[in-house]
Amino acid sequence: MKVYLAGPEVFLPNAREQLDKKIALTRAAGLIPISPGDLAIPQKPTRHEFGLAVSEIDEHLMNSADAIIANLTPFRGIAADTGTVYELGFMCGRGKIAYAYSNVGADHYARTVAYYGVEPVRSADGRLRGPDGLSLEDFDMIDNLMLDGGVERRGGVMVRCDVPEAERYTNTEAFEECLTLLANRRS
Amino acid sequence: MKVYLAGPEVFLPNAREQLDKKIALTRAAGLIPISPGDLAIPQKPTRHEFGLAVSEIDEHLMNSADAIIANLTPFRGIAADTGTVYELGFMCGRGKIAYAYSNVGADHYARTVAYYGVEPVRSADGRLRGPDGLSLEDFDMIDNLMLDGGVERRGGVMVRCDVPEAERYTNTEAFEECLTLLANRRS
Repeated sequence: MKVYLAGPEVFLPNAREQLDKKIALTRAAGLIPISPGDLAIPQKPTRHEFGLAVSEIDEHLMNSADAIIANLTPFRGIAADTGTVYELGFMCGRGKIAYAYSNVGADHYARTVAYYGVEPVRSADGRLRGPDGLSLEDFDMIDNLMLDGGVERRGGVMVRCDVPEAERYTNTEAFEECLTLLANRRS
Repeated sequence: MKVYLAGPEVFLPNAREQLDKKIALTRAAGLIPISPGDLAIPQKPTRHEFGLAVSEIDEHLMNSADAIIANLTPFRGIAADTGTVYELGFMCGRGKIAYAYSNVGADHYARTVAYYGVEPVRSADGRLRGPDGLSLEDFDMIDNLMLDGGVERRGGVMVRCDVPEAERYTNTEAFEECLTLLANRRS
């Protein structure tokens, strides 16, 4: 089974090392890693065209995979990296198997409350709302319900692990749990 | 042509009004709106199961649509709402037509620089990096390259509009431009 390894690791200073670590762990679990860091992108006339070329290659890689493990650890804010989220949606849309994880223990609701810094208030329509009037999802989920729902409704698992902040993008315990769950699912 | 209307409007205090406005504009453009606000969700024993039920209905709605217009206006941070991003990825994965827009004029790179509050520094590997070491995408795009790439490589357009902050989630100029582009594409 080929597994697409989605996550914000490509942005790390030690991206190659971290991607290689995940690739090795995937092989050790008896699965075949498809990693977006394994790219040779040809030069393009503009930055925009280069970005499009990366998108094309990544989608081809996803199409070649049977499953995805998405790292939904919050990235530059309270929510998952949008590139990774697109990839999770893409694979669910294609009917592939999906697992995901976060290295932050606080759930989507707790992180949104922390974002506002004040407790939400229940409005006349029964919704909990922040000071800007926007309602908060409180579904005991890692991220927006479309993400958790997309994974769980396809038989996957959202794994949550609370690691020290310094290991937020490098700790692989939750990723390894996804690998184990996925490998066991095969048999 | 049926168009799924994805965006964070469902969180607004005046969600119903804003969704109805987008539905009316879609009909006026000669297209058939499929709106995630048009839901009747049965009660469930737990909040989690309720969230899963919403996910299931939204995916059914997406499957019934031929195209998506995704509102990628930054939401509670510098990036698009993750639920909307999942839906964009899902529809691209299913080979549907995709258009998207943002009501914030600053592109992904400018918003990421603003998030750090300091200019990025070019590291030895040639990447621009923030003070936390994470690299910045600078591809002249609205959001992560997978989003812009997913839309543009399918013949869609990413429309950017810079509206006053008070109108960030209610201004429909960019949405209407997407409708016009999509309606003209039909003929």
